[in-house]
Amino acid sequence: MTKKVTRARTRRAVTDYTDTTNYNHEKDTLVYALGGLGEVGKNMYCFEHDDEIIIVDAGVKFPDDDLLGIDYVIPDYTHLIKNKDKIKALIITHGHEDHIGGIPFLLLTCPIEKIYAPKFAKALIEKKLSEKRRLASTKIIEVNGDSRVSTKYFTVGFFNTIHSIPDSLGVLINTPNGRIVETGDFKFDLTPVGTNSDYQKMAYIGASGVTLLMSDSTNSEVDGFSISERQVAQSILEITKKTPGRLIVSTFASNVHRLAQILKSAVDCGRKVAVFGRSMENVVEIGLNMKTIDIDPSNFVSPELINTIPANELCIVCTGSQGEALAALSRIANGTHKYIRIIPGDTVVFSSSPIPGNAMNVSGIINQLVRCGANVEVNTPLASLHTTGHASKEEQKLMLQLIKPKYFMPVHGEYKMLKLHADSAIETGVPKENCFICSNGDALILRDGEVFRANTRIQTDAIYVDGNDISGLSTSVIKDRKILADNGMVAVVVCIDSRYNRILCKPGIVSRGFVFIKESQTLMKEAENLVYDALKKAMKQRVTFGDLKNTIRNTLEPYLFQKTNRNPIVIPVILNHKDAMVKRNTN
Amino acid sequence: MTKKVTRARTRRAVTDYTDTTNYNHEKDTLVYALGGLGEVGKNMYCFEHDDEIIIVDAGVKFPDDDLLGIDYVIPDYTHLIKNKDKIKALIITHGHEDHIGGIPFLLLTCPIEKIYAPKFAKALIEKKLSEKRRLASTKIIEVNGDSRVSTKYFTVGFFNTIHSIPDSLGVLINTPNGRIVETGDFKFDLTPVGTNSDYQKMAYIGASGVTLLMSDSTNSEVDGFSISERQVAQSILEITKKTPGRLIVSTFASNVHRLAQILKSAVDCGRKVAVFGRSMENVVEIGLNMKTIDIDPSNFVSPELINTIPANELCIVCTGSQGEALAALSRIANGTHKYIRIIPGDTVVFSSSPIPGNAMNVSGIINQLVRCGANVEVNTPLASLHTTGHASKEEQKLMLQLIKPKYFMPVHGEYKMLKLHADSAIETGVPKENCFICSNGDALILRDGEVFRANTRIQTDAIYVDGNDISGLSTSVIKDRKILADNGMVAVVVCIDSRYNRILCKPGIVSRGFVFIKESQTLMKEAENLVYDALKKAMKQRVTFGDLKNTIRNTLEPYLFQKTNRNPIVIPVILNHKDAMVKRNTN
Repeated sequence: MTKKVTRARTRRAVTDYTDTTNYNHEKDTLVYALGGLGEVGKNMYCFEHDDEIIIVDAGVKFPDDDLLGIDYVIPDYTHLIKNKDKIKALIITHGHEDHIGGIPFLLLTCPIEKIYAPKFAKALIEKKLSEKRRLASTKIIEVNGDSRVSTKYFTVGFFNTIHSIPDSLGVLINTPNGRIVETGDFKFDLTPVGTNSDYQKMAYIGASGVTLLMSDSTNSEVDGFSISERQVAQSILEITKKTPGRLIVSTFASNVHRLAQILKSAVDCGRKVAVFGRSMENVVEIGLNMKTIDIDPSNFVSPELINTIPANELCIVCTGSQGEALAALSRIANGTHKYIRIIPGDTVVFSSSPIPGNAMNVSGIINQLVRCGANVEVNTPLASLHTTGHASKEEQKLMLQLIKPKYFMPVHGEYKMLKLHADSAIETGVPKENCFICSNGDALILRDGEVFRANTRIQTDAIYVDGNDISGLSTSVIKDRKILADNGMVAVVVCIDSRYNRILCKPGIVSRGFVFIKESQTLMKEAENLVYDALKKAMKQRVTFGDLKNTIRNTLEPYLFQKTNRNPIVIPVILNHKDAMVKRNTN
Repeated sequence: MTKKVTRARTRRAVTDYTDTTNYNHEKDTLVYALGGLGEVGKNMYCFEHDDEIIIVDAGVKFPDDDLLGIDYVIPDYTHLIKNKDKIKALIITHGHEDHIGGIPFLLLTCPIEKIYAPKFAKALIEKKLSEKRRLASTKIIEVNGDSRVSTKYFTVGFFNTIHSIPDSLGVLINTPNGRIVETGDFKFDLTPVGTNSDYQKMAYIGASGVTLLMSDSTNSEVDGFSISERQVAQSILEITKKTPGRLIVSTFASNVHRLAQILKSAVDCGRKVAVFGRSMENVVEIGLNMKTIDIDPSNFVSPELINTIPANELCIVCTGSQGEALAALSRIANGTHKYIRIIPGDTVVFSSSPIPGNAMNVSGIINQLVRCGANVEVNTPLASLHTTGHASKEEQKLMLQLIKPKYFMPVHGEYKMLKLHADSAIETGVPKENCFICSNGDALILRDGEVFRANTRIQTDAIYVDGNDISGLSTSVIKDRKILADNGMVAVVVCIDSRYNRILCKPGIVSRGFVFIKESQTLMKEAENLVYDALKKAMKQRVTFGDLKNTIRNTLEPYLFQKTNRNPIVIPVILNHKDAMVKRNTN
């Protein structure tokens, strides 16, 4: 397998920071992100002092639609690979993919001895690594709000936060130059389901003095406070009570507290529950083991038996609330699910909100469900069927008030979110010049309780992962895919004998994604003759392979555009007789 | 140019309705949609009686992201082409692309003598047709709320409605079997800017008795009443007043009343105005001619002079509020605009809401603008910087109450929207069995004031238009593009002489969108040798071209997957010596 990592694009020139600079690398502490700034995804924040690096989180990002055929985007790990002996710990704040998804790729190039993760994240990481058979020498150590991790220079403590997954932690990092708080993903919820935020500890940390706060910016654009998980639980219970037929609820698999509430509502209303979708089944299993989901196992019914249960005594929870094409809900909507088909009277509840890129897919599935006769309930401001896992503007300000940092660096968000978060920080009293909006690779220096920008950068990049294994794809490949996707391709093949300047075979043309072949026989025939004539004429003189390729392109491209108004990639392939000089097209 | 129309996909078997059926085609009136049902876009509603057809609207639809390289989707016009002598009129309700965009394509295959359109739509259609040089023998006749169009069987009247473009009309069609109202796109606005809805006329039509109402379902999912254009105008004036630097406002070009308000606010606050973007320039020109935009021409400043105007005395209106890559605002954000670069202190106002498919693009542009230092104002429930052009749930009910139809057919919307609109109709008193949720091609029969479903269908389809001209693309081509886009392609070319069962040239391999070529020289070399060996072995026996192609695929596909974890399209091309039997690969 190709295991080579290709850099996808370099956004700025990169300097090796050891060469120059305002950074004294014996005394200063360096803070930088390899991912997570200017984007939602692939979070990875690093803290470096002398010969030690500790990393907080190692996530993936899911690609935009224009990254054709790409499955994940990961950070460029080059800087860590170069400094792998320095890495003392990888600390995980919680178990979402944008915080743990990069671990298998990171371990492949950069062995890390110790990963510290809260309980639920630890279970997910172990599952992930065992699937990839990549646990090897890495030890995963469970941490909680009371844990402490110490290295030569760093002492790391934790505090409980609330997020849309159980066991979510904020991190306090004591460095030789000051104290840093990295919040992880968080929200505040005054009436939570599950663990509570540790307000007292946060306030105590704040009172003890924090040099730099790095805080979650995802929902900087959302005003006010987010609604409480308790209110969502209430709405779900109400819908469960009033639903006359089968109840199908789709939500994020990792939101175990939500899942627990859905299952509890169902059981309380006398319904048996069935679980559809692999990630949902995994999480329910973990949740039952951890007692986060606390219902009697006798209430579960296996998928093949659901048709033996009366409609008003059944609740199905399933994956696919984001319209993912292969998830259970899509297959249910399409009528391709193995065990269940929508019948009129079914109620489908989306306990979720579509993230922007998925709105069209979700809308398509709702249309299909309604067409099959289902009653579909989606989250609206009034319905309260879902709440976010991230702090809205006022919650972000509460975190700023509790931690009372001297310096502030908004993290985890697109540029506009970071900017708005910085504005909030200024409103709460952080001086404007103490707020740093950074990009991935920008470095901040901590020196004696002060923070300023380093004048050099760390190498960063987006690495595209295509397929099941790590093997970077370059932008030129993506660009070709874009042209192929929009216009298709036409390959022209001709075989010559360069010894005698002769054409051995008449040119052949094949195309894909261009025009429907059966309808374009005449077009292709004419094109072949045109190219043949042009080549014969060209070969009356001495020509190079390059000349012949140009002849083909110059003949065919205008012809095809004139006939079809399209510009496919034209790929000339010239073969030479095997006894002649072997010089082949690899252009 | 290829002008052939290819059917893209047939959703259901199609029967010729003249053969069978419950439709008496001398006496009955037939109502059907060729586009607009189960989708937002390509609206086209037809009314057929004996030897007459009248058409209401002829729109295009913009393709979803998964239709790679497709520019427009239009309805299948086959039924109209077959019956072109019957077509007596095309009636246009308003000038949006999803109602007029199909006209050039329709006229290409189906000459129509008379198009009736309100003033603003007429101007846009004329512009469109003159660009395509396709006005020919078609006469475009201006209609307004008082106009009347009569054919042998039909009498068509109009009433003024409000929509996000000036001169929007609802249509009343008197048929021999009953009266039909088609609302066109509409909203109600109790304090409108521009023309008002003609409440009295709608109520009068309702009082006179309406057999069938066909009403706009776009915003069936939105509760309550939409906010007034007057309130938006007020918000824009407030922002204009308080903005200290340059003001850049982006909105939909066709929303002339909005544009007029923006320009008026700017001039009232002492700003000069500049207009960026071709469609915006066109519309401002038309709006000034029609006096819909009523400001003194001396207030306009040409783009090359904007830098001579103090920042606080300039307002720029521009296209691109949906994040369109080539529109003015994208180029401004990217720093590639000819005349303007964002400087800190600029304020950019989005007087728009992103439609779901565009949310990511809009978000990207906002990030770029903020990064350049702009203050960006977007529409939120509190900000009132935009209002929709379509009726919310309560406005839909008001239309139902005014028209008081006996039968109801929700149109213009996805299935879930049609369903919710039908629910509203039932709430307002239309009997459930009198509501018809139809698909494109379903036909309703009007007979003596009653409406029921025809038991046959009209041929309908989605025709994909790629490039500037009409030439349908088949689904197999789109499917190939999808594979090319996700995995790229590898072509293997070999040249043989079938007379002597000999390989003339060693196989050559070219790829696109697969792996980066410079990094995969070894891979390709190895693949070529592998194929060469396999072919030599195969050709020791008598083989067909098909056998050789299979040999290539069976050798290469597993090898490439094993090496790269990817499945590109493998395209074998076998050339035969020109003196041998000419039998070539067109697979």
